Amino acid sequence: MTTQELLKKAKAAKSTLGSYSVEDIDRALTAMADALIEDADAILAENAADIAASRGVISDVMIDRLSLSADRIAGMAQGIRDVVSLPSPVGKVLKRVERPGGLVIEKTSVALGVVAIIYESRPNVTSDAAALSLKSGNVCVLRCGKEAHKSAAAIVKALRKGLTNAGLPEDLVLLVEDTTRQSATELMTADGYVDLLIPRGGPGLINACVKNATVPCIQTGTGICHIYVDSTADIDMALNIIENAKCSRPSVCNAEEVLVVARDIAPAFLPKLKQRLVDARAENPVELRLDTEAAKIIDGTPAGENDFDTEFLDYILAVKIVSDVDEAIAHINRHSTGHSEAIITSDTTAADKFARGIDSSSVYVNASTRFTDGGEFGLGCEMGISTQKLHARGPMGLEELNTYKYIIRGCGNIR
Amino acid sequence: MTTQELLKKAKAAKSTLGSYSVEDIDRALTAMADALIEDADAILAENAADIAASRGVISDVMIDRLSLSADRIAGMAQGIRDVVSLPSPVGKVLKRVERPGGLVIEKTSVALGVVAIIYESRPNVTSDAAALSLKSGNVCVLRCGKEAHKSAAAIVKALRKGLTNAGLPEDLVLLVEDTTRQSATELMTADGYVDLLIPRGGPGLINACVKNATVPCIQTGTGICHIYVDSTADIDMALNIIENAKCSRPSVCNAEEVLVVARDIAPAFLPKLKQRLVDARAENPVELRLDTEAAKIIDGTPAGENDFDTEFLDYILAVKIVSDVDEAIAHINRHSTGHSEAIITSDTTAADKFARGIDSSSVYVNASTRFTDGGEFGLGCEMGISTQKLHARGPMGLEELNTYKYIIRGCGNIR
Repeated sequence: MTTQELLKKAKAAKSTLGSYSVEDIDRALTAMADALIEDADAILAENAADIAASRGVISDVMIDRLSLSADRIAGMAQGIRDVVSLPSPVGKVLKRVERPGGLVIEKTSVALGVVAIIYESRPNVTSDAAALSLKSGNVCVLRCGKEAHKSAAAIVKALRKGLTNAGLPEDLVLLVEDTTRQSATELMTADGYVDLLIPRGGPGLINACVKNATVPCIQTGTGICHIYVDSTADIDMALNIIENAKCSRPSVCNAEEVLVVARDIAPAFLPKLKQRLVDARAENPVELRLDTEAAKIIDGTPAGENDFDTEFLDYILAVKIVSDVDEAIAHINRHSTGHSEAIITSDTTAADKFARGIDSSSVYVNASTRFTDGGEFGLGCEMGISTQKLHARGPMGLEELNTYKYIIRGCGNIR
Repeated sequence: MTTQELLKKAKAAKSTLGSYSVEDIDRALTAMADALIEDADAILAENAADIAASRGVISDVMIDRLSLSADRIAGMAQGIRDVVSLPSPVGKVLKRVERPGGLVIEKTSVALGVVAIIYESRPNVTSDAAALSLKSGNVCVLRCGKEAHKSAAAIVKALRKGLTNAGLPEDLVLLVEDTTRQSATELMTADGYVDLLIPRGGPGLINACVKNATVPCIQTGTGICHIYVDSTADIDMALNIIENAKCSRPSVCNAEEVLVVARDIAPAFLPKLKQRLVDARAENPVELRLDTEAAKIIDGTPAGENDFDTEFLDYILAVKIVSDVDEAIAHINRHSTGHSEAIITSDTTAADKFARGIDSSSVYVNASTRFTDGGEFGLGCEMGISTQKLHARGPMGLEELNTYKYIIRGCGNIR
């Protein structure tokens, strides 16, 4: 099936969306979870084929992301069941106004329509994205990277079987067959077919969307996250937070990439930082990339031109000295991707200034940037983390996969 | 000043936004209104020069839109004062979550940053857009069509004088000097400088934005609005609503362009429609463009290929016969621009189906599409009417010129 044919199927499925109740959707999601478990062997076989084809071609970390097991499939099924238990965001009256003349205006949450997701090699995204799209009342079009395509196809086959078992059209979940760049471009320009495109991947994919997309698009997941250690910071707290933000899972988008330190505290703080992140870590010591001033205080790698604009996703931390919170804010707003930033301080004025001045989705006072996550924010799920300002910012849950419309009831009202 | 230089000034002004209170902003708006009145003579002189240069070049309707008078300037000043009296949307805690571990997460409304507006020949948009942008905490970059540029420059000069008088930076309001297509393109691609671009104009401008914009953009104002007369409609109510929606102000985007009629009621309804919209109107009778079936019932112009996809903005109405509400919904969703649609019916099942099935910003039951307006919806103002689904849909007020960020306060929390 060509991508154009698939998009027509998605549009046809979209026209049926208004006719399902919350119970229909939840029943379908449960059937999809059941079908995943039933089809586990088939999914594992296709996953093994993906892995065999990728071995030696992609890194071990990527192979690990790609690998499924019976346990991981059970986890995917449980993920769908968790989505069932979340409240439906659709059809809520967000605001109600009664106007002179008797016109009643209700701002009502509704599904977007067709949500397309471009993602790379994690097969579990397939079922997560499908479940969140369906729960929020949308048709889901998935476009998976070629490394994971056989796995994704087996998963989607199971999900569609679940839909059929529940009496809903299988075309509510569709997987693009073409894994070349062309299909990504076709989705980006599918005006009238795609109501929202979510690219989940590296900067290359995100930039291609920004440049080429003519359909509505939400940029996700690039995180050059900063932590600023203010002159009044509690040094132990700062060390704990920085080690957590940098080292607990360096490959994720809410990990810290850049440390900004107030000049006043740098001589006391930086030696302890080196002790904690480098000397004390037998495994995975952090490489510190130091600006000129920091390099006069501790040993490390001299920071290069791009080190303050790089998402390392690795045990690397760029370090910069600034004079105060104002200079920290200015540096961060210039170099950040708008994801998550933190200040460590015991000065409430500095904290408020930072919270107000930083132009990012999530601004922390005395906490780790690693909390930027749908689950941690209490959304119950996550479709990605938006780094843009329009429509959704930060972790996207079910509500962010909806839009609204005004439904206005009158009795012959004219203006 | 080049557009690039101007964008740098806007960005510098943006970095000061966090330091103004609601009272500062309101004081500045009042000073801007005062300055408009003080500078009325200078503004009228520049407006006269615009009109002299445009006479014979643009239509009389356009000349009328372009023309200012002392009264119109007083109206613009009053418009700014009305904005002062609206509540500020900035800094509201939209949601507050306290997580296990004591982390407090506040979803807080914040300004977008720099809002750019591209508009055509109505000088009053200059002060309206500046006031709404400032009240919602944003820097405003205006790019006016060349016909109105001298008028806009005089208005912006007054507004900036008002800002200075109130002690705020004049660069919170900026007018692009270049009126060639190049400056529009520069705004569309001003990544990192423009946080939201609002094109207000015809389909050419909107399409150019969709194709070329790499900055976040909200499409506004194209309205191919439909009214569907169901088989159970009250015929007098339908005639009143249709005459209002078509004839009260045909040049606006919420005017009706297409009438869809249920086959059952067409023989009784269409002759009365022709009587009301054509025969009874001595001035401005409506030209009916009829599909084959309607043409068998009443006289009119045969509908051409594009008549169901045209925003006439004139005393012209395309008429189509359908079998029922389902076919009406399908036709409308295929041909609408997503602005406003109405059903006239006494059948609540049909009304609910229509309200649920129509994929437009505003869906009316037994009321005129002409109500789609910020003022009529109780927003107190309007920056335009969004026909897209992301971020803002329908009339945009102050809240729609904001985004949110999460401010998270902890006491050393790590994950």
